[in-house]
Amino acid sequence: MTALKNLIQSRRFEAFITALIVINAITLGLETSSRAMEAAGPLLVALDRIILGVFVAELIARFAVHRGRFFHDPWRVFDLLVVGIALIPATAGLSVLRALRILRVLRLVSMVPSLRRVVGGLIAALPGMGSIMLLLGLVYYVFAVMATKLFGASFPEWFGTIGHSAYSLFQIMTLESWSMGIVRPVMEVYPLAWLFFIPFIVSTTFTVLNLFIGIIVSAMQAEHDAEASAERTALQAEQETILAEIRALREDVRTLAAQKETAGK
Amino acid sequence: MTALKNLIQSRRFEAFITALIVINAITLGLETSSRAMEAAGPLLVALDRIILGVFVAELIARFAVHRGRFFHDPWRVFDLLVVGIALIPATAGLSVLRALRILRVLRLVSMVPSLRRVVGGLIAALPGMGSIMLLLGLVYYVFAVMATKLFGASFPEWFGTIGHSAYSLFQIMTLESWSMGIVRPVMEVYPLAWLFFIPFIVSTTFTVLNLFIGIIVSAMQAEHDAEASAERTALQAEQETILAEIRALREDVRTLAAQKETAGK
Amino acid sequence: MTALKNLIQSRRFEAFITALIVINAITLGLETSSRAMEAAGPLLVALDRIILGVFVAELIARFAVHRGRFFHDPWRVFDLLVVGIALIPATAGLSVLRALRILRVLRLVSMVPSLRRVVGGLIAALPGMGSIMLLLGLVYYVFAVMATKLFGASFPEWFGTIGHSAYSLFQIMTLESWSMGIVRPVMEVYPLAWLFFIPFIVSTTFTVLNLFIGIIVSAMQAEHDAEASAERTALQAEQETILAEIRALREDVRTLAAQKETAGK
Amino acid sequence: MTALKNLIQSRRFEAFITALIVINAITLGLETSSRAMEAAGPLLVALDRIILGVFVAELIARFAVHRGRFFHDPWRVFDLLVVGIALIPATAGLSVLRALRILRVLRLVSMVPSLRRVVGGLIAALPGMGSIMLLLGLVYYVFAVMATKLFGASFPEWFGTIGHSAYSLFQIMTLESWSMGIVRPVMEVYPLAWLFFIPFIVSTTFTVLNLFIGIIVSAMQAEHDAEASAERTALQAEQETILAEIRALREDVRTLAAQKETAGK
Repeated sequence: MTALKNLIQSRRFEAFITALIVINAITLGLETSSRAMEAAGPLLVALDRIILGVFVAELIARFAVHRGRFFHDPWRVFDLLVVGIALIPATAGLSVLRALRILRVLRLVSMVPSLRRVVGGLIAALPGMGSIMLLLGLVYYVFAVMATKLFGASFPEWFGTIGHSAYSLFQIMTLESWSMGIVRPVMEVYPLAWLFFIPFIVSTTFTVLNLFIGIIVSAMQAEHDAEASAERTALQAEQETILAEIRALREDVRTLAAQKETAGK
Repeated sequence: MTALKNLIQSRRFEAFITALIVINAITLGLETSSRAMEAAGPLLVALDRIILGVFVAELIARFAVHRGRFFHDPWRVFDLLVVGIALIPATAGLSVLRALRILRVLRLVSMVPSLRRVVGGLIAALPGMGSIMLLLGLVYYVFAVMATKLFGASFPEWFGTIGHSAYSLFQIMTLESWSMGIVRPVMEVYPLAWLFFIPFIVSTTFTVLNLFIGIIVSAMQAEHDAEASAERTALQAEQETILAEIRALREDVRTLAAQKETAGK
Repeated sequence: MTALKNLIQSRRFEAFITALIVINAITLGLETSSRAMEAAGPLLVALDRIILGVFVAELIARFAVHRGRFFHDPWRVFDLLVVGIALIPATAGLSVLRALRILRVLRLVSMVPSLRRVVGGLIAALPGMGSIMLLLGLVYYVFAVMATKLFGASFPEWFGTIGHSAYSLFQIMTLESWSMGIVRPVMEVYPLAWLFFIPFIVSTTFTVLNLFIGIIVSAMQAEHDAEASAERTALQAEQETILAEIRALREDVRTLAAQKETAGK
Repeated sequence: MTALKNLIQSRRFEAFITALIVINAITLGLETSSRAMEAAGPLLVALDRIILGVFVAELIARFAVHRGRFFHDPWRVFDLLVVGIALIPATAGLSVLRALRILRVLRLVSMVPSLRRVVGGLIAALPGMGSIMLLLGLVYYVFAVMATKLFGASFPEWFGTIGHSAYSLFQIMTLESWSMGIVRPVMEVYPLAWLFFIPFIVSTTFTVLNLFIGIIVSAMQAEHDAEASAERTALQAEQETILAEIRALREDVRTLAAQKETAGK
């Protein structure tokens, strides 16, 4: 058991798995090319199966070592999910699930520390965005319901249901063909439609912008805090030295006074 | 009266109203689905009326408690407006007003403190943008008048009136189909039209960007100020201690000198 | 002369001119509406002429007061230009110049201090962008020449001359219809055209972004400097006090020592 | 040899080369105009050849002076490449290489110090973006493979190969015609395609945004560090003075005590 633990935690083993992920990325990429499949199809499929087998064996080994604590590390759960996807199509045979096998390549993120740190940083930025995301969701829902009621009858393809409206409003928020593609045609039927769409664009753009500003400010704050506290520490250490010197001096003066008193007696 | 005040300010009552808003959001959303209306139309309409009734009763209770001060809190005025909208269609029967009933769901913002804070923050950012917004409005007006005079005759759909021009210029500012959709066709008639549109795009983009930079800088300034003053306070407190120590020391020395003089006499 | 100077520098006179600008903005806007012109055309034209007359008289008065120094204030030169435009069409009769009369409304910027400050701030940000603008211009020129040579023969409408190429590249930089409208059609003739356009998009976007980052950073630096120096000043003032106290103390001790020596003799 | 070294490092020589680059930029630009070629074609071609000759001579001179160290300065290597391009078409005659001759104008960047600094700054920002660029590349690859497998059969023009998919995804990331042009048509065949594209847009936009935030934060950090350390240095220098004064004072007091002891004996 300890031997297994040492093996899966060794640098060499990690490099081996990382190399397999990269090779798997290439074989899965080549599988999309009909020319590569003609030339070496069975080899690519065999390689993919072998690598999948190694990944499964690796995850079983990790599970054997960590037991219940296996699920405490979110990255291991992520690994389990993206490898697990590849095991489903064997039984279900859904073509979408076959396409999802490439997600396995994202294991690279959990293997390379610098990538893990970047993704960790991106995810860490999310909770601070909670309130503003909730607000954006609320504004979205309200505008989607309104758009469905106002324009759904005349433009069922764009605003027929709440789902259609939410998609169209997302497109409008990204400013893609919002005017020529959607709002101008709508205004031909409802000339005042701009009273609905322009406030939507301005308010969501302004909200998303504030979301981003919030992330920038907190990122800078984090960096600045670390530095400012270092600076303050240096200045305070110096102040402490000054204070200690002054207190020692007062002691000197007090000793002097005591000496004199004794001398004066 | 005090009982009523205690009721409407209790946590339980707020949770009850919040729950009603969420239920109302769902029923209003379901009303857009013809299948849901067929299955449970009368129920949804009844639920909506009951909840509206509760909201009206709640607002009357709040008004009874706060009286004139009811209008001092902008959130309560907001509540009054979005609930009030639902009362108009009963008399007027305009379909647009029916669609506006969903605005009632925005009461969630006034009920959930974190959302209220986010919206408060967004609104607080507006006054600092006053001058630059005025400038943007002025630039817009000048370009809209010019566009109407220059291109209105040949392109009445886009620049026929100041209103049409303002809408088209807004579209151009968002960069949506500005070239393929508008400026290239205009240039076929007026080959020098780019002399009008490119300066417009560059200047408004630059101005809007400066608007955003202003918001970022003042947001960071606000955070930074709080922190910097905390830092300064810590350093100054230490300096005060040092100064006090030194002054006490001078007092010691003076006492010593006085002792000696007395001793010397 | 002094009376004239007092007049044109009085608050009341400034308010009068500002009011005239606003009225002129409205009359010039109404001139674009055929209905307003039918109803009150001669009145609008007369009002415009009268206001123009007042502006000319005002500028003559300012020139009489300031003489050569008139041209030292860039805002006065700006006023002269935008009012001067309105005087040309009387002789030349070009319709474009008639449209430019609305520029006169921009005098509002030179009259309202807060707008003048905002525009001053925007202009002040420009010199710091000099090098990066020059670089962007250079990259633009190089890509425009290349595009003309590579794609000019097959797509004369988009890349026929350097001017056409520069316009098309500007459109591509703003990301408007760059792919569906331009690059995909070009790739049907030159399949490797993406090797030209994608580096262009990435490099100009990255450069423009750095331009903006530069502006943000220098804006924050300016604000931060002011504040940091205030903070430093406060801390240094305190340090000066401490130092002064210590030096006074040393003087006390020296006096004490001198007294003793005298006493000891 | 020293004479040659002094020559190529003299200000006058640099100004001469810079002037030649500017003239060459103009002649290469004029070569794209058929009217200019008719009027002065042979002159433009002759000028271009002469300037190329001077550049080759200059680079040989620089190589003679610096020898092996010639390749240590990346700017000189850059000069060699962009001048070298012009020498290939003479033998190969590829029209693309003729178009690349304009790259020679980018030598201006290596000659003008302020441009060199800007480009150096842009390049210096790249390594800090390494991890996030790698992540973006990985996400891109995974989505490109998935898109090819999912939509390649029905939309070969957009998602037929990994290359096509990568290009289409780049277009979608820039938000150009993503919905009207690509996702809506795809959704007509695969109604759930938005489950693929909207997460792609949100995740890549968020990642690219974090890339930019990282650059902003590190740019500000660099400026701030320099300033903060200057501030700290000033405060610490003052603290050092205070400490020195206090230590001198303790020395004074000790001397006083020693005097007294001697006096007391």
